[in-house]
Amino acid sequence: MIIIGEKINGSIPKTGAAIAEKNEAFIRNLAAKQTAANASYLDICASVSPEKELETLKWLADLVQQESDLPISLDSPNVGVFAEAMKLCRKPGIINSVSMEGDKIEKVFPVIAGTTWNCIALLCDNTGIPGSADKRLEVFERILEKAAEYKIEAGRLYIDPVVEMLASSEEGALMIFDTIRRVKARCPDVHITSGASNISFQLPLRKFINRSFIILCMGAGMDSAIIDPTNEDMLALIYAAEALLGKDEMCMEYIGAFRDGLFGEQKKA
Amino acid sequence: MIIIGEKINGSIPKTGAAIAEKNEAFIRNLAAKQTAANASYLDICASVSPEKELETLKWLADLVQQESDLPISLDSPNVGVFAEAMKLCRKPGIINSVSMEGDKIEKVFPVIAGTTWNCIALLCDNTGIPGSADKRLEVFERILEKAAEYKIEAGRLYIDPVVEMLASSEEGALMIFDTIRRVKARCPDVHITSGASNISFQLPLRKFINRSFIILCMGAGMDSAIIDPTNEDMLALIYAAEALLGKDEMCMEYIGAFRDGLFGEQKKA
Repeated sequence: MIIIGEKINGSIPKTGAAIAEKNEAFIRNLAAKQTAANASYLDICASVSPEKELETLKWLADLVQQESDLPISLDSPNVGVFAEAMKLCRKPGIINSVSMEGDKIEKVFPVIAGTTWNCIALLCDNTGIPGSADKRLEVFERILEKAAEYKIEAGRLYIDPVVEMLASSEEGALMIFDTIRRVKARCPDVHITSGASNISFQLPLRKFINRSFIILCMGAGMDSAIIDPTNEDMLALIYAAEALLGKDEMCMEYIGAFRDGLFGEQKKA
Repeated sequence: MIIIGEKINGSIPKTGAAIAEKNEAFIRNLAAKQTAANASYLDICASVSPEKELETLKWLADLVQQESDLPISLDSPNVGVFAEAMKLCRKPGIINSVSMEGDKIEKVFPVIAGTTWNCIALLCDNTGIPGSADKRLEVFERILEKAAEYKIEAGRLYIDPVVEMLASSEEGALMIFDTIRRVKARCPDVHITSGASNISFQLPLRKFINRSFIILCMGAGMDSAIIDPTNEDMLALIYAAEALLGKDEMCMEYIGAFRDGLFGEQKKA
């Protein structure tokens, strides 16, 4: 499972406050803890006004890279920032994100063409978030065409099916599972990723909805998630699901993570 | 989700001791707690020597039915006991279990023919536990034929795919998911059930393996489980999965279970 650590995001109130106060220790700690928890990438999202975004990303990237050797996931709604922000990163990471909305792909794909950067691509376009799996698959086809045009291999794409809240759309999660299965069947080389928190918005005890959701997505073929890897229960269920889905020979990753104290009683001892 | 409460089973050491000591309060408490936790059936398994089994089942059934209106799941490896044991039950329940091994079905199906009793049927036969989904599906076909012969509707069958431990068979869980999908596709009317504990045998922190396993089975089409409904985290993940799988209109069951204190902080308040 390719875990993109979500904690260094200015839209999370505590992280936003740390960014506003230039609290280096707070950011360093998030980077170190997510690295220790076996994240594959560390997401950084400034969530500040556009004129301050690049300098904030530089501050975050510098701190993160002093604490961790993990590649960075550059997270911004403003695709114009990626070309400069990529220069702040010691190694190729992930662009988070593009979609078929506006000229996002036209701005980002040329910048990562000829590099080994990866890219999260959301299955939405100018019409918004498609209301069916069929329509999301159509968006996926257009993303694949654009990727081919810029010679970006499918294996560098992280397809995000775009999750909406379950509370207002009881068939929405089923559509996501269907979309994941069909994207993976259409093009086994792409990665599929998603966050967990949108799905549980406005429901009580969101953690249970989030956990079941990620496990069901994994069962449908998702191989990446944008989550908090320091959440031990979520991490343990993910390692368990990997083993159950035949992706962990002799359960050695699961047992290793347990022995390393990533989850379970041992950590509390 | 049709939850078969597993706690009143003499092979669980504490329950076995309570049975040996004729500790009525202990059994009553298990019945009451599993009923309050929204079980659909209460399993009773004596796990004593054959000559004491029927009297022990009578003692258990009487206590359980004084505490609970739920139907009973009669659990014995000795199919000869079911005909008499059924008479101990105030309402039709589930026979747990038959398989294509020996003359089990030939002994049990005539007894439940013409009643509304349900029956758990394991996908194994005289050759043991089949090593592939194909072979389990063949056993399933033979069970369906036998059921048709005795005019037992498919909706009264609870198919148990027979789970083996993951630690010694890393593809074993994938085969179970495949078997569940194919059984459900072949005959949508049957129920599918399983216990959770065999899968995690010899692995650390078994609870995480068990939970991910049940959720992944639900994603494949399982609609019943033989579990401990008083395990709040497992129960919450199951309610969450039901909502995510489109089986809980407006998440009302999930929200209701939370409000009733079946899981979550509220219970501890």
